[in-house]
Amino acid sequence: MSSSTTSPCQFCAIAADTAAASRVYEDKHVMAFMDTQPATPGHLLVVPKEHARDLSELAPKAGARLFRATHLIARAVRASDLPGEGAILFLADGAAAGQEVFHVHMHVIPRSKRDSFGSDAVWAKPPRAELDRVAASLRAGLSALTEVTPLRGLSSGS
Amino acid sequence: MSSSTTSPCQFCAIAADTAAASRVYEDKHVMAFMDTQPATPGHLLVVPKEHARDLSELAPKAGARLFRATHLIARAVRASDLPGEGAILFLADGAAAGQEVFHVHMHVIPRSKRDSFGSDAVWAKPPRAELDRVAASLRAGLSALTEVTPLRGLSSGS
Repeated sequence: MSSSTTSPCQFCAIAADTAAASRVYEDKHVMAFMDTQPATPGHLLVVPKEHARDLSELAPKAGARLFRATHLIARAVRASDLPGEGAILFLADGAAAGQEVFHVHMHVIPRSKRDSFGSDAVWAKPPRAELDRVAASLRAGLSALTEVTPLRGLSSGS
Repeated sequence: MSSSTTSPCQFCAIAADTAAASRVYEDKHVMAFMDTQPATPGHLLVVPKEHARDLSELAPKAGARLFRATHLIARAVRASDLPGEGAILFLADGAAAGQEVFHVHMHVIPRSKRDSFGSDAVWAKPPRAELDRVAASLRAGLSALTEVTPLRGLSSGS
């Protein structure tokens, strides 16, 4: 969605100030700069400065800092003179999800009613029993993550 | 992307336990449950329990909590037996961005290489000067948000 993977990491190079970027925001832990292949004008990337390949490598605290900056920047879109009357936040985690640069990054894509952005996903409408079955699989996945304490009253799928 | 807007808020009803949902996760501030119109199996929504129409209404701390749970759940997808080898995080902020339920929600959409999910956005390739111009607009938007202190060395667009 951005440019292709290179070695060494192109986002680490931007963090180290050895690669060009049209920068929008920076704090001690997070930076934001324009995507060089924007889906809409104002499309930018919010990136933790410290390298993390994907969400499985990203520390929870780093994730919270990433979202704090993302949230602020999404609000800034509406406060700017860009045509966005809203924005999409988008993060592709893993090659199967379309991740192309393997340094975690959150897209902020300003949207207006007249832009070209869209999705060609097929939206299903499964019965509740199917949804419950999938929910159980996800709860099992959560339980497998060691830091998760038992979820309040959710073991039976309520 | 989920179901259509209703009044009173359907996600507040789920938070109050007066509406059915296939629940996956719950803590004091955040809940997660299956999207009833999933793009892929395992597609769920992570939602702050307290009502906030969009990101402009969401408190920064509530946003951090939302992402903390989202991050955990995205990792749970890979730890589950679902086919997702990755996931997309997706949040539509505002009607222009495709938001349909006006209670902030983050989509977690498990992805595998064989699913139907895609995007028909047109990816541009603007010159650096154009990217710099847009970055300046966004920095101006950020400055207009009162809590933002001057950004370190970013006033000139480097």
